[in-house]
Amino acid sequence: MPFFPAALETLIDKFASLPGIGRKSAQRLAFHMLALPEEEALAFANAITQAKQSVHCCKICQNLTEGEVCGICASDRRDKSTICVVSEPRDVLSIERGREYNGTYHVLHGVLSPMNHVGPDDIRIKELLVRAAEEPVEEVIMATNPDTEGEATAMYISRLLKPFHIKVTRLAYGIPVGSNLEFADDATLNRALEGRTEM
Amino acid sequence: MPFFPAALETLIDKFASLPGIGRKSAQRLAFHMLALPEEEALAFANAITQAKQSVHCCKICQNLTEGEVCGICASDRRDKSTICVVSEPRDVLSIERGREYNGTYHVLHGVLSPMNHVGPDDIRIKELLVRAAEEPVEEVIMATNPDTEGEATAMYISRLLKPFHIKVTRLAYGIPVGSNLEFADDATLNRALEGRTEM
Repeated sequence: MPFFPAALETLIDKFASLPGIGRKSAQRLAFHMLALPEEEALAFANAITQAKQSVHCCKICQNLTEGEVCGICASDRRDKSTICVVSEPRDVLSIERGREYNGTYHVLHGVLSPMNHVGPDDIRIKELLVRAAEEPVEEVIMATNPDTEGEATAMYISRLLKPFHIKVTRLAYGIPVGSNLEFADDATLNRALEGRTEM
Repeated sequence: MPFFPAALETLIDKFASLPGIGRKSAQRLAFHMLALPEEEALAFANAITQAKQSVHCCKICQNLTEGEVCGICASDRRDKSTICVVSEPRDVLSIERGREYNGTYHVLHGVLSPMNHVGPDDIRIKELLVRAAEEPVEEVIMATNPDTEGEATAMYISRLLKPFHIKVTRLAYGIPVGSNLEFADDATLNRALEGRTEM
C-alpha cells in the first residue's frame, strides 16, 4: 500500500535514483520540495531542464559549456601547446582551483573499463587524436584518476599519441593512490603537476 | 571566476539549497543529471512540477493527497472517533508502518516554535478544532515529536481541546526522548501507541 500520493511517490523515486541518496533522504528531499513556495519548486525543475538543454560539450576540449567553445579554449591567455587530459568535467575544476596550470584541457567523459563495457569508442579519445594532429601540441599531460582504469586509459592514450612525437607526461604520484582527483587538495594537485613524469 | 557554464552553476546551486546536501554533493548530483539521457532528466524536472501542482492537503486531515480527501479519511474501515495528531506528513507513514493504529490522522504541518516565529495560526490547529466540534471524536492522540517544541505543541492543543470533553492522550515515552519520530522502529512505535497516557 503506497502511503503517499502517486505524484509524491514518483518524486521520491526520482530523488532515490540519484547517486548517494537513499530512500529516507529522498523522502526528506521530496517533502522539502513540496514545502517550497510554488515558484521556487518550479525554478528547480526549470534549472534541470535548462541545464540539460543548454549545456553541451565544447567542440575542442569536450568540457561542458553553453557556447560552441568553452571559456578556456576561447581564451588567448591559455597555452594551447599543452593539453591536460582528464576523465570528467569536475576534474577540470579541481586542477583550475590550483591556479598553476595555464594550458588547455581535454575531457574524456569516462575511462576505459572493459568490466562496464566502456571501450575506446565510448570516450572522447578520437577528438584528442584530431587535436594532436591539427593543433601545435607540444605536451599532453595525462591526469586521469590514479586507479587501475585511469592508469590503463592513460597508458592506452599515450601509445596512440606516440606517432605524433608529442611529449606525453603523467601527473606525479603526489595524489594519494587509489583515491579520487576530485578530493585532492590544491597543494597536492600543484605538486603533482610540478612533478609530472614522462611516460 | 565560475568554472562551469551558468546553467550548470544554477543547477548546482539548486541542489546545494536542499537540506543535507553540500557543495560537493550538489556538483555530483548536477553532473549526474547532465549525464542522464535527455528524457530521464526531463522526467525528473516533470516529477517536481507534477508533485508540486497535483499534491495538496486533504481537506479533512491536512495530510498530503492528490484527491480532495486522502485515502485514510475516505476509507470506511478507519475508526473516525480517534484522531492521531502528528507534525509532518512523513510521521503518518511512520505510524502506518506499525500496522496497529486504525484511527485517522491530523497533520499540523509544523510545531509551535516562537524562536522561528511559528505561532498557532501558522500550523493547522484551527482545522483540528473544527473537526473536534463537528465530528464524533472520542479521543485525540498527540503524536508530535518528543522534543521541547513537540511537547509544547501537544500541551497547547490539549488545553484547546479541554472544552470539547474529548479524551486527549500522548504517545508513551517508548520513543527515545530528544530523537525524531521518523527514525523510530516499528516495535517502539507500537509500544508507544499501546502505552499512551492521558494528559
